[in-house]
Amino acid sequence: MMNRALSIRSNKGGSSSTAGGGSSAGGGTSGGGHGGGRKGFSFASLRGSIQPELSRRLYRLIKSTNTLVTAHEAAGRERVAIATQLSEWGEQTRDEAVSDVSDKVGVILSEIGEQEDSYAHGLDEARERLKAIRNTERSVQPSRDGRDRIADEIQRLKLREPQSPRLVVLEQELVRAEAENLVAEAQLTNITRKKLKEAYEVEFAATIERAEKQVLLAKHGRRLLALLDDEPVTPGDARRTYTHAAQGRQILNDAEDDLKSWVLQLDETTVPTGAEDDSGELSTATAAAPSGPHSHSHSHADDSRRREKSAEGSTAAVSGPS
Amino acid sequence: MMNRALSIRSNKGGSSSTAGGGSSAGGGTSGGGHGGGRKGFSFASLRGSIQPELSRRLYRLIKSTNTLVTAHEAAGRERVAIATQLSEWGEQTRDEAVSDVSDKVGVILSEIGEQEDSYAHGLDEARERLKAIRNTERSVQPSRDGRDRIADEIQRLKLREPQSPRLVVLEQELVRAEAENLVAEAQLTNITRKKLKEAYEVEFAATIERAEKQVLLAKHGRRLLALLDDEPVTPGDARRTYTHAAQGRQILNDAEDDLKSWVLQLDETTVPTGAEDDSGELSTATAAAPSGPHSHSHSHADDSRRREKSAEGSTAAVSGPS
Repeated sequence: MMNRALSIRSNKGGSSSTAGGGSSAGGGTSGGGHGGGRKGFSFASLRGSIQPELSRRLYRLIKSTNTLVTAHEAAGRERVAIATQLSEWGEQTRDEAVSDVSDKVGVILSEIGEQEDSYAHGLDEARERLKAIRNTERSVQPSRDGRDRIADEIQRLKLREPQSPRLVVLEQELVRAEAENLVAEAQLTNITRKKLKEAYEVEFAATIERAEKQVLLAKHGRRLLALLDDEPVTPGDARRTYTHAAQGRQILNDAEDDLKSWVLQLDETTVPTGAEDDSGELSTATAAAPSGPHSHSHSHADDSRRREKSAEGSTAAVSGPS
Repeated sequence: MMNRALSIRSNKGGSSSTAGGGSSAGGGTSGGGHGGGRKGFSFASLRGSIQPELSRRLYRLIKSTNTLVTAHEAAGRERVAIATQLSEWGEQTRDEAVSDVSDKVGVILSEIGEQEDSYAHGLDEARERLKAIRNTERSVQPSRDGRDRIADEIQRLKLREPQSPRLVVLEQELVRAEAENLVAEAQLTNITRKKLKEAYEVEFAATIERAEKQVLLAKHGRRLLALLDDEPVTPGDARRTYTHAAQGRQILNDAEDDLKSWVLQLDETTVPTGAEDDSGELSTATAAAPSGPHSHSHSHADDSRRREKSAEGSTAAVSGPS
């Protein structure tokens, strides 16, 4: 049952706020950093450990999904093999009823295996969407690094040589890098949300398709089993003649018809309207910058906000490839 | 789709009737042997190749089912791992909406993984029922072999020494062996039908349970995805503040409630009544020995029927352990 948790994060609590508050190079989309609990890491070391980690996590997720796809493919393949084995075993029992029922149950099992294989393909399709996010993450990384490198250089130069004429050039470079990064970050958030949603919509649809079709098949499978008379016989008594072969064929026809007429029906899931929001705010209103409970962390976010301002006016819509 | 076949046997046709007609040592449960197409094998060579094959097929089926169980266990495990990876990836995007939705979708995926694992357990339970058949097959084999050995010895002795007094003793031994085998064969057919039916009833019930629960979960998962606003933003524009966290928690609560109140509801599948049978015979009537279309094969069945007669009077019900 699901009463274990309403979150499955293993590091719930301290470490997340540490990581979130430690870097000013956030994507500009988070509601506000959490300031508490920095443990003395420099920005540079956090960038070294956390930013690649971000990309690595999705890489691992995609790899694990591949393992999952493989497991379901193997299950589908094995299921089809089992179906044939069951049928052939039944034939060799020389029991007409067992032979007929096992053969037809085998047909059902084989189709259940095919559905398992289709499910694996659905998961693989979802996986492709996640790859689009990972690829964007990877391409955004150099943009962040370039901007941060210039910012670091400015900081160093200000300490060593506050009057250096190179500072002016670097500040100009920083504005350009920030503008470029602002576009990159917008691309990242757009691709991330779009593809994340798509990926799991594809996956849930595949889950529902496999499930509903396998329910149909299993129910017809149960009808087939009912054709098998399992009343015990006494030694020497003959079994009743098996007379249900045509009924069995009809059940398979019914199953085939049910599969053919099956269509994916999904409730229209709508973005909740503002009236139902727990914040009471209208979700259609353009949200302002984070305030209220998060205001204590503004000092950490100032730096990145200044950078966003420097690119104001660049309002071209940035959306990823569909 | 299922239009591929109404049978999945790879050797449909000639070979089955050959195998069925070639041996007189059948279990006494088949409706009647098929006489055509013997290809010159002796009884001994058929016993050597076919009877162990019977047991070997079920052995292989049970082994394949174990592979299937392992595949679904692996899928369940991987699914739970992926759920955590998704949640932790989402957290590190620093996007509050992505973080919250990915964490909660992770909870759903984790539960889908748990259901996959329960399904694997259900398959394993079904597999245990098949083992009961295999064990009975194995224990019946020596009984068949013993009876056939005596019958063979009688045949040889009749040719070499028709007046031998040992023939009388052997005939008595044969009657005892046949009586013992008659019980064994009744045990085999009773166990086979009972456990075959049970095995796939358990398996189909597990299939329906996994399917229906995963449909519930996937539908709530879709509701969670709808909380994620994937309208593209322009560079520099802030995302709307994410205000759906409480709604997300409510969706998880709904999912948990749905799972808790889920019950397996199976249509009562009844043994079809005689009126619906394709033969027109009442299935409640005790079936007579095969007749009509099968009468041409009676000469092949005479031998085994004689043996059944020799054990008449032994009417104790033989049913296997439940």
